[in-house]
Amino acid sequence: MPKNALYAQSGGVTPVINASAWGVIAAARRHPEAIGTVYAAQNGILGALDEVLVDTVQLPDALLARLKHTPGGAFGSCRHKLKHGAELKRLFELFQAWDIGYLFYNGGGDSADTCLKVAEFAQYHGIDLTAVHVPKTIDNDLPLTDNAPGFGSVAKYVATSVREAGLDTASMAASSTRVFILEVMGRHTGWIAASAGLAADVPHAAPHVILTPEVPFEAGRFLKAVEAAIDRVGYCVVVAAEGIRDAHGVFLSEAGSVDAFGHAQLGGVAPILANLVKESLGHKCHWAVADYLQRAARHIASATDLAQAVAVGEAAVSYAISGLKSVMPVIVREDSEPYRWRIEAAPLADVANREKPLPLEFLTSDGLHLSPAGREYFLPLIQGEAPPPFRDGLPDYPHWGWVPVEKRLPPFNRG
Amino acid sequence: MPKNALYAQSGGVTPVINASAWGVIAAARRHPEAIGTVYAAQNGILGALDEVLVDTVQLPDALLARLKHTPGGAFGSCRHKLKHGAELKRLFELFQAWDIGYLFYNGGGDSADTCLKVAEFAQYHGIDLTAVHVPKTIDNDLPLTDNAPGFGSVAKYVATSVREAGLDTASMAASSTRVFILEVMGRHTGWIAASAGLAADVPHAAPHVILTPEVPFEAGRFLKAVEAAIDRVGYCVVVAAEGIRDAHGVFLSEAGSVDAFGHAQLGGVAPILANLVKESLGHKCHWAVADYLQRAARHIASATDLAQAVAVGEAAVSYAISGLKSVMPVIVREDSEPYRWRIEAAPLADVANREKPLPLEFLTSDGLHLSPAGREYFLPLIQGEAPPPFRDGLPDYPHWGWVPVEKRLPPFNRG
Repeated sequence: MPKNALYAQSGGVTPVINASAWGVIAAARRHPEAIGTVYAAQNGILGALDEVLVDTVQLPDALLARLKHTPGGAFGSCRHKLKHGAELKRLFELFQAWDIGYLFYNGGGDSADTCLKVAEFAQYHGIDLTAVHVPKTIDNDLPLTDNAPGFGSVAKYVATSVREAGLDTASMAASSTRVFILEVMGRHTGWIAASAGLAADVPHAAPHVILTPEVPFEAGRFLKAVEAAIDRVGYCVVVAAEGIRDAHGVFLSEAGSVDAFGHAQLGGVAPILANLVKESLGHKCHWAVADYLQRAARHIASATDLAQAVAVGEAAVSYAISGLKSVMPVIVREDSEPYRWRIEAAPLADVANREKPLPLEFLTSDGLHLSPAGREYFLPLIQGEAPPPFRDGLPDYPHWGWVPVEKRLPPFNRG
Repeated sequence: MPKNALYAQSGGVTPVINASAWGVIAAARRHPEAIGTVYAAQNGILGALDEVLVDTVQLPDALLARLKHTPGGAFGSCRHKLKHGAELKRLFELFQAWDIGYLFYNGGGDSADTCLKVAEFAQYHGIDLTAVHVPKTIDNDLPLTDNAPGFGSVAKYVATSVREAGLDTASMAASSTRVFILEVMGRHTGWIAASAGLAADVPHAAPHVILTPEVPFEAGRFLKAVEAAIDRVGYCVVVAAEGIRDAHGVFLSEAGSVDAFGHAQLGGVAPILANLVKESLGHKCHWAVADYLQRAARHIASATDLAQAVAVGEAAVSYAISGLKSVMPVIVREDSEPYRWRIEAAPLADVANREKPLPLEFLTSDGLHLSPAGREYFLPLIQGEAPPPFRDGLPDYPHWGWVPVEKRLPPFNRG
């Protein structure tokens, strides 16, 4: 007798997380002997607790396929760490009420941990549940997998943006702005910042300085590197991870600023670096903060990333059907040039709650540039274009307008 | 006897300013009977003063065509107001030394003024010079022309980014960030900010609040609009022009912030608005500042904008050859639906130093949204995709590596 499946998105979304959703749902449809209905939780695990479920049967194949072209989390995501006790118990009540035998949990490190806990609870209580974690994170800091779905597209966006803004800065440097600073995501790791180095296809091209959390920030060294670039090429483009910190681990953004009312300013290392350059070197600076733009930019997604996001979704279903429990499909790099990869199953227990920092050998010895080894790693991940369809001049993204199923359980007080 | 031409780029660059350069140079090549060599000044008028000229003959047609696909200013631009007296005199020495009979000056309002002054000087002194201004500005604030080349591509970038970041914000709003603020360019006018309204293809879609310099900023009204959007759809996406100001004309960015060292913080209304939302409403906020990213984003340029950028370049050459002096090709809108446009010559004297504000009827009566009239105006300008070629996963932009001509004049001391 086929069992139903629950699919849920967790944590920060990516330009291709919905492609993994498509991978899961479309693969499940190909196996009606094993999987009945795929329900998607709205707003991730919160929707599961509140029994706000979408019956994906309401999606005809053609509309379903549009998941591959849509950024954000089509079913909604959330930041919520599932609590043991009442919440975990409620989740299993939901599984029972909806005859759910498969959980496909699409998230990063935290959700891998949650997924594992759910699997362990089921095993301990002898409940028939197969939990598979579907990886995604723009941060690329998941262990075991060579790279995380979502990251390649962000790398492509960031490198494209840096190349373009670099040309702009070069145009104006003779009489105006000499320094351009782009702040990218990466609270704990410098994967995204380092990948921006791909923009420099020739030695003098932007970016000229890359700042990562892995390399302690020193103002003097930073300013010297900026000045050296200006001496060399007349301008300087800097890419800074939001999480850069000094040798004592103090975030630069905490050195922070206050607004006119004396309130601590929200985030933003770019304006702090710009001030430093202006005050210390006297150069006119421009700065940008990409924030959500980088992780939502489906219009410039990597075709390779998209294919991998689909593949991990499909593999999750294969693993589940073949009886593999508590695993996560990971991407294994077979070769960099030409790039070859395959999907393998890794035990969830080895994934959960471990963070993979950027290897220092991916940076040059001064820690401020992408090294050849880093380039070799990153380059395959941004290959290929996969633009969404356009309508009226803009990417055509569906408005899903989900109608949730009628509830079967009493309300749950999340407290 | 054909005369040579000088082409120069001026002011902030656009994603398609080089397409106008292509229009000028390619059209001139088709008229060897009238125009000899096209020289391009490096770094705009500064290069002309310093006699740093590029002989565009060194560009074979195939490489020349790549100008259409490259953002930034391929020949370099500058911010420099040509001074009467020594500088103007020097410019005419250059014209004489290089037998220049045509000036194609590619810029915004300030450069239209400069171009006019050069033309008047020539006329007064009986010098045979035809000066034509080739319009460009992402700000879209040039008078007489229905729209300015460069603007449509920025509008397309901004509307795309807002649509994408809006989906991201919607995904997370149930448990995390509820408000996303995107700061766009527009120190004096709200054309760019308003065009972001195109992203909202259905009433509930992002952006929910648009802030322009034309509508005085009131914190209370702003916060009420944010809260109303959250009540209605669960989240709120705000687009703010950098130049928003209060009823007294005080820029919000001047209300400004200071960093930990007590230095005034450089620019950025987005973090100020984010702080306001957080302190007043308690919502978690994310913010982005697009800065150069928006005006360099050739990868998402508007095909319509590109065509118009080429057309004004070509028209400038036609006008010059046919003896029209001191004019600027302008875009005339014949119809909005279906969109039809043509190029006409407008007298430079009517262009110079006038700024065209966003018409208030392009906003809804509360001043915080794009109106149907505004949508009708903006929509045609972002139509069509014209992606650059990609190589190794990134837009393939040439490194020009210009070799300037050997100088004929003594050095000029710009003082």
